[in-house]
Amino acid sequence: MSGAVILDLSRILAGPYCTLLLHELGARVIKVEPPQGDDSRAYGPFQDGESLYFAAINRGKESIALDLKDDGDRAVFGRLAARADVIVENFRPGTMEKLGLGWDALHERFPRLIYAAASGFGHTGPDSAKPAYDMIVQGLGGIMSVTGHPGAPPARIGVSIGDLGAGIYTALGIAAALYHRERTGEATKVDVSMLDCQLSLMENPAMRYMATGSVPAPMGGRHATITPFAIFQAKDRPIIIAAGNDGLFRKLCTALGQPDWAQDPRFATNETRRALAAELATLVEGVLASHSADHWLQVMETAGVPAGPINTVADALAHPQVAPRNMVVQAGGVRMIGNPVKVWPHAANDDGQRTPAPALDGDRTRLLAEFGPV
Amino acid sequence: MSGAVILDLSRILAGPYCTLLLHELGARVIKVEPPQGDDSRAYGPFQDGESLYFAAINRGKESIALDLKDDGDRAVFGRLAARADVIVENFRPGTMEKLGLGWDALHERFPRLIYAAASGFGHTGPDSAKPAYDMIVQGLGGIMSVTGHPGAPPARIGVSIGDLGAGIYTALGIAAALYHRERTGEATKVDVSMLDCQLSLMENPAMRYMATGSVPAPMGGRHATITPFAIFQAKDRPIIIAAGNDGLFRKLCTALGQPDWAQDPRFATNETRRALAAELATLVEGVLASHSADHWLQVMETAGVPAGPINTVADALAHPQVAPRNMVVQAGGVRMIGNPVKVWPHAANDDGQRTPAPALDGDRTRLLAEFGPV
Repeated sequence: MSGAVILDLSRILAGPYCTLLLHELGARVIKVEPPQGDDSRAYGPFQDGESLYFAAINRGKESIALDLKDDGDRAVFGRLAARADVIVENFRPGTMEKLGLGWDALHERFPRLIYAAASGFGHTGPDSAKPAYDMIVQGLGGIMSVTGHPGAPPARIGVSIGDLGAGIYTALGIAAALYHRERTGEATKVDVSMLDCQLSLMENPAMRYMATGSVPAPMGGRHATITPFAIFQAKDRPIIIAAGNDGLFRKLCTALGQPDWAQDPRFATNETRRALAAELATLVEGVLASHSADHWLQVMETAGVPAGPINTVADALAHPQVAPRNMVVQAGGVRMIGNPVKVWPHAANDDGQRTPAPALDGDRTRLLAEFGPV
Repeated sequence: MSGAVILDLSRILAGPYCTLLLHELGARVIKVEPPQGDDSRAYGPFQDGESLYFAAINRGKESIALDLKDDGDRAVFGRLAARADVIVENFRPGTMEKLGLGWDALHERFPRLIYAAASGFGHTGPDSAKPAYDMIVQGLGGIMSVTGHPGAPPARIGVSIGDLGAGIYTALGIAAALYHRERTGEATKVDVSMLDCQLSLMENPAMRYMATGSVPAPMGGRHATITPFAIFQAKDRPIIIAAGNDGLFRKLCTALGQPDWAQDPRFATNETRRALAAELATLVEGVLASHSADHWLQVMETAGVPAGPINTVADALAHPQVAPRNMVVQAGGVRMIGNPVKVWPHAANDDGQRTPAPALDGDRTRLLAEFGPV
């Protein structure tokens, strides 16, 4: 994305995560913040008075504070927009129109400017103008209803998948719109709704429901259709064993010291195993109870049976792929997660160092000089 | 993405979801299947003998079956690759190299061809060649460790976020690579790892852990830092209430008929409320117990307090935004989830109808004629 200039009016998470992804792919991102700054500058944890929440999501960006209701600042905004490739915002729909800066107005003034909006419910439809928060969209989209243990109270997905999902899809829409503009000259409006993104992630349970009329329920630690492919308790903690076909089931039985199970006609096929999933889990856990998770993970690896731990965040960051893949980077001495989209040969130049997030309005003088007097 | 031709060797979910997103954005996707077909053609549920799992993810694509170990079929593959813009695969790293079709070999033969790979652990690093499954990557990346209720056994996230995450980031990488190639002429290799994608989704808990040394734990139905912003039990079922600041907390107290709570110094700020989160939840649920979830959701909407239900899949699909946003589409009489990335003005042409997924090898004759004799 080198060469693309993104004017980023977005706040907090969905929009800033989108522009972080684009920045990691080479785009220049100029944050246009309100005079009081992006709200997330006040979100903890803090280090030396600076929000690390903000620092991680806004690294490498530039900042100028503009009051879009002030004529002088609006003129500055116009100078920036005239030379930007993309504007990104995640206001409630209608906000930019009230400022006279909606898609129609901007498209007329700047016909090459791509406009991208991430919102709760999208820029069309009867509930378009309603506010949304990550957790509420998680609830509306159904993901909470298929996660967790049957009969247990529902829980939030532990990351802001409502915001992050919208952020990734918006980044995809922007990259596609830039490609389209290069090929055709046409600038377009990318309109991403958090709810639509949740539904896209729910494509499988939604398809199953629409096909069968049966409402998908939480499955706990089990795969919906494959057995045994689930979380099982070892002596000290649970592990995941994924015996995805008959051959792997035979290997699993041998690894557990129970080769006779593989001959048992009740466990001959996935369908018969699935019908006896609870009984089979009891048998498997009866054997696993004799040794630790680490022991069994080693046994499974040797036997060629896919298996794995349920990592904490600390465990995850210690995975042997993390450092070689530069998945932890540093900006201003703060560690944060790196770029998940490796593009070779350019990824070879990643030294794991990043430019820190900007101070509020920290690039004003340079930006005014670069983009000219108003 | 109109005009982009994608040669899609990917199977099952991560790769096919990636190319579905690109197809919805206008790309032409030619599935190159092994002679026995994409494994997911055997995944239920079925309708008239056809896999709906496959139908939903592969709509609008074309299919040709090629045995990439057969010289004649390899020649056909070469004709397709010579005119494609992108090749996508989600084999275990090394598989394409063994076929002589890795990035280095293809890049030399077809210098304009973009190569995109989605794999469990990426194409570099010591664990690159290890196999991965969605649930195992969910376990490794840490998302299970921050989801659910404290002390409860872990659960799988109810959608295949390991595969779907990799699919979206790969689509982003491809769109960015196409833009880059238009601008510079350079074709690149996009290398996406399921584990890297999980870590990117975990950016917030990972940042908090690296900053504080405290390992993030599951938070149940509560927001990590804002109170009250959580799931609360009403008379019949739970609802989400998101009082994200002091003003909304005052509105909530009034809506619950307890305006005095807003004057209580123990609940004066988010920090003091957070310290008493459990006590506050008991008070809120004591009031909510008197009426149904529907009643309270109406009260909250009138009061301007963000709130929402915990929808089932059936509820989610009945949301008033779903039909106006074309989030349920039809292909061959089968209903499936639509396109979450709306691009205007083109989205206005979406009539909700899609071309069905192809039969295995169903486009061979036409593709051979179009791409010429070998």
